[in-house]
Amino acid sequence: MRVVIIGGGFGGLHAAMRIRGSAAEVTLVDRRNFHLFQPLLYQVATGGLSPGNIAVPLRHILRRHRNVRVLLGEATGFDLERREVKVLASGVPRTLPYDRLVVAAGMRTDYRGNDAWEARAPGLKSVEDAVGLRGRILTAFEAAENALDAAEQDALLTFVVVGGGPTGVELAGALGEIARFTLRREFRSIDPSRARILLVEMGPRVLGGFPERLSAAAARDLARLSVDVRTSTGVKEIAEGTVVLARDGATEVVLARTVVWAAGVRASPLGAMLGAETDRAGRVKVNPDLSLPGRPEIFVIGDLAATGFPGLAPVAMQMGDYVARRILGRAEAAFRYRNRGTMAVIGRAAAVADFGRLRLTGFPAWLAWLFVHLVNLVLFGNKVLVLCQWAWNYLTFGRSARIITDRGRE
Amino acid sequence: MRVVIIGGGFGGLHAAMRIRGSAAEVTLVDRRNFHLFQPLLYQVATGGLSPGNIAVPLRHILRRHRNVRVLLGEATGFDLERREVKVLASGVPRTLPYDRLVVAAGMRTDYRGNDAWEARAPGLKSVEDAVGLRGRILTAFEAAENALDAAEQDALLTFVVVGGGPTGVELAGALGEIARFTLRREFRSIDPSRARILLVEMGPRVLGGFPERLSAAAARDLARLSVDVRTSTGVKEIAEGTVVLARDGATEVVLARTVVWAAGVRASPLGAMLGAETDRAGRVKVNPDLSLPGRPEIFVIGDLAATGFPGLAPVAMQMGDYVARRILGRAEAAFRYRNRGTMAVIGRAAAVADFGRLRLTGFPAWLAWLFVHLVNLVLFGNKVLVLCQWAWNYLTFGRSARIITDRGRE
Repeated sequence: MRVVIIGGGFGGLHAAMRIRGSAAEVTLVDRRNFHLFQPLLYQVATGGLSPGNIAVPLRHILRRHRNVRVLLGEATGFDLERREVKVLASGVPRTLPYDRLVVAAGMRTDYRGNDAWEARAPGLKSVEDAVGLRGRILTAFEAAENALDAAEQDALLTFVVVGGGPTGVELAGALGEIARFTLRREFRSIDPSRARILLVEMGPRVLGGFPERLSAAAARDLARLSVDVRTSTGVKEIAEGTVVLARDGATEVVLARTVVWAAGVRASPLGAMLGAETDRAGRVKVNPDLSLPGRPEIFVIGDLAATGFPGLAPVAMQMGDYVARRILGRAEAAFRYRNRGTMAVIGRAAAVADFGRLRLTGFPAWLAWLFVHLVNLVLFGNKVLVLCQWAWNYLTFGRSARIITDRGRE
Repeated sequence: MRVVIIGGGFGGLHAAMRIRGSAAEVTLVDRRNFHLFQPLLYQVATGGLSPGNIAVPLRHILRRHRNVRVLLGEATGFDLERREVKVLASGVPRTLPYDRLVVAAGMRTDYRGNDAWEARAPGLKSVEDAVGLRGRILTAFEAAENALDAAEQDALLTFVVVGGGPTGVELAGALGEIARFTLRREFRSIDPSRARILLVEMGPRVLGGFPERLSAAAARDLARLSVDVRTSTGVKEIAEGTVVLARDGATEVVLARTVVWAAGVRASPLGAMLGAETDRAGRVKVNPDLSLPGRPEIFVIGDLAATGFPGLAPVAMQMGDYVARRILGRAEAAFRYRNRGTMAVIGRAAAVADFGRLRLTGFPAWLAWLFVHLVNLVLFGNKVLVLCQWAWNYLTFGRSARIITDRGRE
């Protein structure tokens, strides 16, 4: 049986790892040669970790899975009747026939129709995004140090994070930490702790997916890091150097040189190419067993599947495991998500964690976060190193990977 | 006293660190926000370390030196009569007046008049070079896995390193290790250990600056890693996919998709702007105290100074220390280099080390190399982490930072 899996994120990788045995020949197609631990991307964007700490070559993870072949290439379309995937690999188009197809192509940043904002307010979905953002943040402090005009300095030291979900909260918290602790003593003309960090959320509270008590704790932790949290606030316009906020019909113009977009995602265009019904964000509607309606040989998993489950790594991993078992004929008829908890970290030594009945805040939540992330980095041979790096950062308030590279290159 | 230092490499950084005390106001100008541990750049190019492991923000190193100001900007020229440096900082031109000037602007890759080779055979001087080269090397293996034609596969699996100095030797050794050990089991269509690695050196032996016995040992270690060492061999042409080698009047055409240039450097153009005599590579001729003839207030240090000392990190560091003492009126009238040893590493657990009377090869030399590099990473708060990373790589034959990033970006 030939199984083609598109996407080496949490869902696709787990599916590839679980379809073992010589009965299935698996081909995992990804545009990148590595699996990315996306929940820690904000750590790269803020100089705490290097890309190499959170990205592992797919081939390396799957080297002992002799029935799995990794193909570096881009899926460009499907022939659903002939059961073929069209792939562009090393510049050459080819077709991959399948008996079972797993589509786990994920999501990308979405600007809700304001595509011009992309250049002014980059998102945070790829390693390149993170390294580029790291360069922007650090360059803003450098330019502020060089600036001769006070108003210019203020604009350079104003950072706006749009979107109060986990990514936005974690990023704003890390920015607060950088300004208040990491850069302390490093500048001569500016005081980095003067930096203004705005977190803008359209909904009534940050971390809308968490219980209210945890949202409130997160907001308090953010305030302690001098992050100015603006809830029930929308973004009307992002121009060069200016963000226009709107709340209750009133608008406010914020002069800010660095704006980050963590406010929306839409599905990979591959979702629509499957010809099935999609939701507003382009996610593909699937059967309870994650198969495509009318196409039992095709499965859509991870964020790309419109299932009502949140777009979190554990959901995608469990979907990958489920679909692997389903393909091998060993799974029940409906996917069930076992929620083992969700969490978000806010700067140094504070977090919120929701394990259902157990809800943690502050330092205990942060310890839980650390523990869970280390366990989940198990795929990454180097989790010991990431732990060392974190311990070092924690003890020294340091962020050793604070380097600005050309045109966002590292 | 106003001291301006241009360049935050080994020479400039050491000068900045040693000029302590409120009597001297020091400004360190660099185009990059970080100091780079250049001798380990080949480890980034071959995926063993991340850029963040070998680059540290200059501000961070100098944060407690209250008399030192770091200026992110590019020195563009001098007004030697008015004693001013012209700098472009955050896009704004300015002038920095000085009482003492230290120029430590270093070297860049040189193609001996064949500038067209640059795009085909990149050098290895910057973090961007290293990350770009890492992408090229890994992409070649990926493309070979995808290739349908055997000749195409051979060309993709042929790597030519031009230049048998320490950088070329270390790079070729690391490539041999990747092909033979790191990538083992990771591919399905190709056998990475079939990769052909050529090290081309114009002189009669590799590591020409070392004693002959050590050159011979290095050549043996390289052969053990299947590196094909070609001495007394020149490069006549580098075209897309082809390198033409010349030896004793005979030429050989090698079909290779990846070519690396480690064969020559020339001085930063700032050297010539000082108006003094320069040597063929553009290095500035200096007095025994490293000052510019006729300009006792200007010093040229590091690789940019034509002194007859080798272009090595320890030389530059000692020059920085000397010039700092000289500026403070505490140094003898002539710089003297204390040679504490030179070394080069060849792949995994082999090296050569020349400590004058003590000459080591193989594993003992590798241990010495490891020890010396860790001591020298002392500036880098994270040397413990680099040690962990190395220990991990050593135990697992792994290179965890093997990620291909867009257009060479990480």
